[in-house]
Amino acid sequence: MGVVVAIDEGNNSRASVKPLVELTRDDMVLVNQLILSKTGSDVTMIPEVAQHLIDSGGKRLRPMLTLAAARMCGFQGDQHITLAASVEFMHTATLLHDDVVDESDMRRGKQSARIVWGNQASVLVGDFLLGQAFRMMVDARSMEALDVLSTASTVIAEGEVMQLAAAQSMETTEDDYLAVIRGKTAALFSAACEVGPILAETDKPVRDAFRSYGMNLGLAFQLVDDALDYGGSKADLGKNVGDDFHEGKITLPVLLAYRRGSAEEQKFWREAMESDAADPQALQHAMGLLTKHGAIPDTVARARHYGEIARDALAPLPAGSYKDALLEVVEFCVSRVS
Amino acid sequence: MGVVVAIDEGNNSRASVKPLVELTRDDMVLVNQLILSKTGSDVTMIPEVAQHLIDSGGKRLRPMLTLAAARMCGFQGDQHITLAASVEFMHTATLLHDDVVDESDMRRGKQSARIVWGNQASVLVGDFLLGQAFRMMVDARSMEALDVLSTASTVIAEGEVMQLAAAQSMETTEDDYLAVIRGKTAALFSAACEVGPILAETDKPVRDAFRSYGMNLGLAFQLVDDALDYGGSKADLGKNVGDDFHEGKITLPVLLAYRRGSAEEQKFWREAMESDAADPQALQHAMGLLTKHGAIPDTVARARHYGEIARDALAPLPAGSYKDALLEVVEFCVSRVS
Repeated sequence: MGVVVAIDEGNNSRASVKPLVELTRDDMVLVNQLILSKTGSDVTMIPEVAQHLIDSGGKRLRPMLTLAAARMCGFQGDQHITLAASVEFMHTATLLHDDVVDESDMRRGKQSARIVWGNQASVLVGDFLLGQAFRMMVDARSMEALDVLSTASTVIAEGEVMQLAAAQSMETTEDDYLAVIRGKTAALFSAACEVGPILAETDKPVRDAFRSYGMNLGLAFQLVDDALDYGGSKADLGKNVGDDFHEGKITLPVLLAYRRGSAEEQKFWREAMESDAADPQALQHAMGLLTKHGAIPDTVARARHYGEIARDALAPLPAGSYKDALLEVVEFCVSRVS
Repeated sequence: MGVVVAIDEGNNSRASVKPLVELTRDDMVLVNQLILSKTGSDVTMIPEVAQHLIDSGGKRLRPMLTLAAARMCGFQGDQHITLAASVEFMHTATLLHDDVVDESDMRRGKQSARIVWGNQASVLVGDFLLGQAFRMMVDARSMEALDVLSTASTVIAEGEVMQLAAAQSMETTEDDYLAVIRGKTAALFSAACEVGPILAETDKPVRDAFRSYGMNLGLAFQLVDDALDYGGSKADLGKNVGDDFHEGKITLPVLLAYRRGSAEEQKFWREAMESDAADPQALQHAMGLLTKHGAIPDTVARARHYGEIARDALAPLPAGSYKDALLEVVEFCVSRVS
């Protein structure tokens, strides 16, 4: 997945997640305390592995969305803290399993957990965190929130399996690819947002607005991440340029360049994406083809499209600092690539 | 884990799971239908992998325990069907992840899913089934059952991590080992039994009785499985004799032989359990040492001890066909080794 929010790291836009960070600061202190306490176990390897990931610089955008959505809907209780931590645990569990599935060596500029502790520990600690996520959902005592989050957990897995199976072909359509990222990334953004209004027991249109906002923000987020994988610098991204390429992970930039390419270029892509060799020359050639066909800016344009849908989804909600912050998150996500 | 109930396959005792099978037959038809429907996905690899495991001859002891416990407590609704299917999905997800962690090639006499579809699919389809398990728990609308089952899911993962970490040493104590199998096997047996009285809203002593029965039955079950790994035949077990040995998985028979062995024998065990080589001569030597120190019958004796606790745990419950069936399951589990 590799979705990293690189805050304040030299993107050209003025848009920022800072307003969201400010609005959720007090609640996030509690979320972070809860996260820390729930990684505890007498089995020492569990907190070690979990902390490695949790400390490694993710900016916790998903739990901030849960907190903001709940508060924006006037929620006065404290279960939004529990659900926010739960969402972050689901995300962390997914990262652990993803690294095993993708055979990734790096995560956010550090060695991935599977390199330090092995694939086995990554699978099992992921399972532990997923279990803890569900326990926290139960603690929040909302059947509807449980329904939304447990459904998200199956949709995430479906998206990942889809990527593993059908989507490993260069003949993958853009629609197929969107189905993959809708599952593996956007479903959790969507659920993270939707549980806020669920806790606050709002009307259905408000709940629908948050679900749609989260889903489309997630799509935009992942597409920008795909573009950044071929365009950012290591310092910005915490991962190497071309990681997706070297892992043979077929993303939208590659699909666009392939569809627009000559027969010879298509042959190159098929061979490159099916081979495991990390050939720097091949990456260079691939970057050239991506540039030639405008695949990176067009991927970002697609991301902007979903970002616009996310913005408009919030229309039914009252103006104010929360709405402004959520709108700015969309702009931030899309503009961090420019 | 490799816990397989080999029904009617030539054990010397008259004890059988047949009475339990008979009592739960009608409900199990519904459970099996539900299991089939919940492995469905547009992502074709998911039902393929799931069916491979689900069809491969497990006798579904855990869901039968859930059904029997609920009915015995007079439950008249239908959520016990949902929870029984959920328990089986948790178990199946664990098997998929276990095979990856243990690098197992065989499961119940068939190639393991990770050999047929790869580790990646096994991890992700396991995640999908775990997600479906939680969705079914939500469908059952019992917060208490959700609490018990979600807690079990973390305890299972803790047990597995414990086995991966601390328990990979020959200096593992019997207490350490019991903590491992309490987590990785007994916790799910216990939860499977406890959710029955929870649905029926019984008094606490009844709930406690089922929880204790399940926990101790699970311990007995795993210890017998450990003994069978060195004593059964391939036809009986659906796995090779010595699988645990070849995987370097330290179980109670080995721990007993090690503790009782000479310095030279201890050196053999340390080397054998730390090496990956599947040396038939080493297995033969190991079997000789297990026999010399009575490690197999003494492991079975330990299992009988937990079986007795399981039997006595049921004392507060009224006599009848359900109680008889549950008592016979204990005897069956322990006697299948003799």
